[in-house]
Amino acid sequence: MESSDVPAAPAAPTLKPGRGRRPADDVRRAALAAAAELLLADGMPGVTFAKVAARAGVSKMTLYKWWPSPGSLAFEAYFSVFERTLAFPDTGDIRRDLTEQLHAFVDLVERHGPVLAGIVGAAQSDPGLAAALSEQYVRKRRGLAVERLARARELGQIRAGVDLETVVDQLWGACYHRLLLPAGLPLDREFTDRLLANLLTGIAPDGT
Amino acid sequence: MESSDVPAAPAAPTLKPGRGRRPADDVRRAALAAAAELLLADGMPGVTFAKVAARAGVSKMTLYKWWPSPGSLAFEAYFSVFERTLAFPDTGDIRRDLTEQLHAFVDLVERHGPVLAGIVGAAQSDPGLAAALSEQYVRKRRGLAVERLARARELGQIRAGVDLETVVDQLWGACYHRLLLPAGLPLDREFTDRLLANLLTGIAPDGT
Repeated sequence: MESSDVPAAPAAPTLKPGRGRRPADDVRRAALAAAAELLLADGMPGVTFAKVAARAGVSKMTLYKWWPSPGSLAFEAYFSVFERTLAFPDTGDIRRDLTEQLHAFVDLVERHGPVLAGIVGAAQSDPGLAAALSEQYVRKRRGLAVERLARARELGQIRAGVDLETVVDQLWGACYHRLLLPAGLPLDREFTDRLLANLLTGIAPDGT
Repeated sequence: MESSDVPAAPAAPTLKPGRGRRPADDVRRAALAAAAELLLADGMPGVTFAKVAARAGVSKMTLYKWWPSPGSLAFEAYFSVFERTLAFPDTGDIRRDLTEQLHAFVDLVERHGPVLAGIVGAAQSDPGLAAALSEQYVRKRRGLAVERLARARELGQIRAGVDLETVVDQLWGACYHRLLLPAGLPLDREFTDRLLANLLTGIAPDGT
């Protein structure tokens, strides 16, 4: 990743309670920015409480208080930086909007796939990270997708009775499959266009 | 898992080259059986070269020679034991055969999900394990699925022109998504029946 993706860590926070500042927010932001820099430079192993504390000018105790593990801090840092690239458009045309969102997703994976895979991989043996990943990312992202799909279903663009959570697994889940269990196959815009065509139209002839 | 799933480790191999035995095979089998026992008892962290060597009565040097990392040994052990449960039926009816294979798969995941997730998770930071997983499991399983789907396509049960690799991601990949990025949703036979219905019929009305 280019360093321009990561906001610069703010200067070590100045404690000015008299002026109504909220230093805890500054400290938190500094820690997240430092963790994001370390993560993108050295991957998951680069994110330790000691390194984040030194880089952000905060105490290790503060980090322990807020995050159950370095993995959960790294995860929050990562997704606080990149969440904005995964907005969910609503132009009223579900095929177009899903196409656009899936393109944005695979573009992100193309640049940051190893970091994303490292986080999901580490979550399999780090309960604190697993909880953060599920609560703060998986459920939130699924919720946004299902919300958009539900509007399409109301408009008759998706069949009544279709389980929308399952659709999420067959679009974004299919992408994660190529990322986490790779077989040398492309994970690109053409792939997501095929996912969408298969799922909207059906792969059996005449919708049988 | 019940211990009956794992074949008992054979007795320490006897070297009888004069009788035409292949002791290397015995050693290999003993190492794999020991690794499978440790894996299912204690998860990935339980599989170390030292423990496998002690349990199987083989030298650590032998293990180093055959496996690049304890993770890759654990992985081979796991899949050598369970591969047979994932056979790919061909009754001539693609919906029925996919249903049956997906049911067998989620039944397996229901019993051994954490071990499977642990292997895939560890692969994200263990290049030797990642290579073994891709070569010996992912590509092989995908190959079997695509082979079966191709016969269905020849018979006109799947539309001409459908990319069959993509179908694999939308069925088994969707299951891995619920396993590796959990959101508290079920990963069961009903789920796979929905995956299949969505994909065969399409989620848009009238196949539009």
